[in-house]
Amino acid sequence: MDRLTRTVERADGVDDRVAVEEPLEIRVRGRALSVTMRTPGHDEELAVGFLHGEGLLAGAPVSVGPTPDLAANIVEVDAELAGDPGERRFYTTSSCGVCGKGALEQVAVHAPPLPPGPVVTAQLLGALPGRLRQPGFAATGGLHATGLFDAAGDLLCVREDVGRHNAMDKVVGRALLDGGLPLHDRLLCVSGRLSFELVQKAAVAGCPILVGVGAPTSLAVSLAADRGLTLAGFARAGRVNVYADRGRVA
Amino acid sequence: MDRLTRTVERADGVDDRVAVEEPLEIRVRGRALSVTMRTPGHDEELAVGFLHGEGLLAGAPVSVGPTPDLAANIVEVDAELAGDPGERRFYTTSSCGVCGKGALEQVAVHAPPLPPGPVVTAQLLGALPGRLRQPGFAATGGLHATGLFDAAGDLLCVREDVGRHNAMDKVVGRALLDGGLPLHDRLLCVSGRLSFELVQKAAVAGCPILVGVGAPTSLAVSLAADRGLTLAGFARAGRVNVYADRGRVA
Repeated sequence: MDRLTRTVERADGVDDRVAVEEPLEIRVRGRALSVTMRTPGHDEELAVGFLHGEGLLAGAPVSVGPTPDLAANIVEVDAELAGDPGERRFYTTSSCGVCGKGALEQVAVHAPPLPPGPVVTAQLLGALPGRLRQPGFAATGGLHATGLFDAAGDLLCVREDVGRHNAMDKVVGRALLDGGLPLHDRLLCVSGRLSFELVQKAAVAGCPILVGVGAPTSLAVSLAADRGLTLAGFARAGRVNVYADRGRVA
Repeated sequence: MDRLTRTVERADGVDDRVAVEEPLEIRVRGRALSVTMRTPGHDEELAVGFLHGEGLLAGAPVSVGPTPDLAANIVEVDAELAGDPGERRFYTTSSCGVCGKGALEQVAVHAPPLPPGPVVTAQLLGALPGRLRQPGFAATGGLHATGLFDAAGDLLCVREDVGRHNAMDKVVGRALLDGGLPLHDRLLCVSGRLSFELVQKAAVAGCPILVGVGAPTSLAVSLAADRGLTLAGFARAGRVNVYADRGRVA
């Protein structure tokens, strides 16, 4: 938790703990691909999770190295890229990608079909937020979390970050580095709202069930329905609202 | 509010309202510069507010047109660009920009010094969140808001969006289109957390006081202190924590 939070002196002289936010440059074989604001720690997971979620990795082997320079806020990934990310970025800003339909189609390119996956109870889905361990949030109120759970609802991995997309990238990146992708038998739970981007990352990671403490957006619901992903929002105290693919909720 | 929210049928057959999220392509004189996920409505404000906040506008005149194609999720801005945004983006991903210090210096380029600005009470700052009008949030729980206030605490403009940075871009963009920049005598209040990005946008818009309902990040506090911006977090029920430049808080 030390790298997640930092003590600052408020203007009234009182010490307060805040979430740490710093930029990270992600490089692949020496080439700078992205700079993201993130909470330091688990940067190698963030890097490979981000690259995987964006469909930029050609496949295994993926490793971080030779020496991630954490002090300089730079992380080096050794992996083969799928095509030229520069061209890809151009494609995403071409007009044919600019509509909800275009966005859904683009995700389909990188997200293989989801399996039937586990069948769980609504009570279990609603209990997941209470099982997220969030010491950084408890200390600062300023961190999002993503947790990876097995079908019994046991927490396998949790990451906190100022960016909710980063927290999920770190969890997915950890699974990738451990050879644990796709997440066919797993559940993901996020501490906040459910945007298009988070459903996209879950779908690309092969996870059939995504739960959030907060509200879903219209495009998140559309994407989940399109990909056959079970999407549950407003998870609290053993209850959830299921917005797509109730087939996995007993 | 109609464009902000949409009714979806939940998996249990119950109708529910969710926040609308759709991509928007921002073009300047025909050139596509950015695609952002946003809540439709006030797209012309979002476009010019975004461009201004990124330091991409060479100055007046700025107009949206000839015909913003809202149905296609494309907005066209007629303005002169400050330099080549392609080169600029390359610069931001070069290693010299990758540290907290580099990020602070980069903002300084685009953010002129802030004025002494108004002096207000902590009670007034803490009352601002209660004065944000958020019908979209009330209906969905899925929208962020930014409000622009005068020094008496009266609400001048409020915008809701699935992206908190978009909500602020829209408010700043509205002010720009009305000739109301810089926001030297104004206060900005956001419904969520205070990240580096939001402090950056407030500073570039010339607003000396930024208030948030949520927690600040470490880099948000550093940037506010560096720019002489009054930053107040955890604003609720007439109370705030002031993290930087208490000089404007009586």
